Amino acid sequence: MNDVLQVIRSHRSIRKFKPVPLTNEQIDAIVEAAQMAPSSMHMQPFSIIGVTDSKLLENIAKRSNNPPVGECGYFFIFCADLYRILAAGDPARQAAMKRNLGSTYVFQTAVLCAGLALQNANVAAESMGLGAVMIGGINEALPDLDEWLGLPEFVIPLCGLAVGVPGESPEQKPRLPRSAVFFENRYNPSLKAAIDEFDRQIETYYGSRLFNRRKANWSGKLTAILGQKLPVDMYTKYVRHKGFYLVE
Amino acid sequence: MNDVLQVIRSHRSIRKFKPVPLTNEQIDAIVEAAQMAPSSMHMQPFSIIGVTDSKLLENIAKRSNNPPVGECGYFFIFCADLYRILAAGDPARQAAMKRNLGSTYVFQTAVLCAGLALQNANVAAESMGLGAVMIGGINEALPDLDEWLGLPEFVIPLCGLAVGVPGESPEQKPRLPRSAVFFENRYNPSLKAAIDEFDRQIETYYGSRLFNRRKANWSGKLTAILGQKLPVDMYTKYVRHKGFYLVE
Repeated sequence: MNDVLQVIRSHRSIRKFKPVPLTNEQIDAIVEAAQMAPSSMHMQPFSIIGVTDSKLLENIAKRSNNPPVGECGYFFIFCADLYRILAAGDPARQAAMKRNLGSTYVFQTAVLCAGLALQNANVAAESMGLGAVMIGGINEALPDLDEWLGLPEFVIPLCGLAVGVPGESPEQKPRLPRSAVFFENRYNPSLKAAIDEFDRQIETYYGSRLFNRRKANWSGKLTAILGQKLPVDMYTKYVRHKGFYLVE
Repeated sequence: MNDVLQVIRSHRSIRKFKPVPLTNEQIDAIVEAAQMAPSSMHMQPFSIIGVTDSKLLENIAKRSNNPPVGECGYFFIFCADLYRILAAGDPARQAAMKRNLGSTYVFQTAVLCAGLALQNANVAAESMGLGAVMIGGINEALPDLDEWLGLPEFVIPLCGLAVGVPGESPEQKPRLPRSAVFFENRYNPSLKAAIDEFDRQIETYYGSRLFNRRKANWSGKLTAILGQKLPVDMYTKYVRHKGFYLVE
């Protein structure tokens, strides 16, 4: 197996870090890796905010309920960014551009491309012996986060990436059976047996790991979270406010 | 520089392939890499369809106007998949789950996570000496593609990944200047100088590369595409039909 597959297969999210800041070389390598990801129409529709201000880190850690934000060696925030393209465009065509940039399709494409860049950053960090964890919890700090980071219309934060020297060595979390994820030519909606198999496997994982042991499985955990009433309409309002999803 | 950074920094999209099919070991390594990507709440909200049926490949290549689809060593389609979670959930809570799974926030999270998996697959392929290109053009085949692949509600195709033994060795496409993409603590909306610099750089690239030489720059190309009237409402209708964005 080559070194790249080795790094990818060894992935674990690291949530505890040693108090060692990243070097400029490490930060540069991570940002360069993100920039090298492909993107649709070469749009490069993402931006990265490196958060170094201690008060800002503290606010984000508190609002996202995520201690690693304040304790890592460097904290990145990955944003979908279609503002840059708007800024590059002919002022006479701003109305048409806004309509397209704000559409479901273009915004979704920007999110997908931001994901490609984010994973390049993650893999680059891991390849240098660093640990990392993605922090979706930054969305809890919306819409204030926009103001803190000075994000204009058509730029929205998607996910944080906390990187640092690992201070823990957790077990690897099992993945869904391949048969539930990979299909040849046609999707197979009969997923029950594969999900049951995975539930048993992950119950064993949660029940036997060294830290944070508990009785839980995949279906139960996701049903508990996604089966409750969530304030999802707030987020829709937020993205509309940023210029997205205005097209009916 | 380590091998992983080397592979990431050497990225080029490959659109011409030698007529050599991928081995099962290569396909397995790519799918395993995709599955190892992290995901929000361990949702693993994506599916991969490997397209091997020659008639299906031909239809997708034609509709997406992308010859590499039919000429590569293996063609993957990455989908956002929240159906699997719905199938795993308690039948008594389907209504609440559907509302949440179909929300802007959860769907956007699924797209981002699918991007992480897709880039792991891309990097894994490149690490094995294969070439790859992402094919956003598969969206041109919607909604028929859903029927061809048997995709249920809450599963939508996002992007293809054509992989194979490289039959070309293109120049590397320049990226935006770092100053236009990476910010410390605060976004800087004064992007004009950086975009102008990039336009000059990419004009040189387009004008001097060996194949497909032309006079074009980044701003001009994107304004031409995104400044015209596009049928973006069709896509919004499509995703709503699949169960998404129904929450106001």
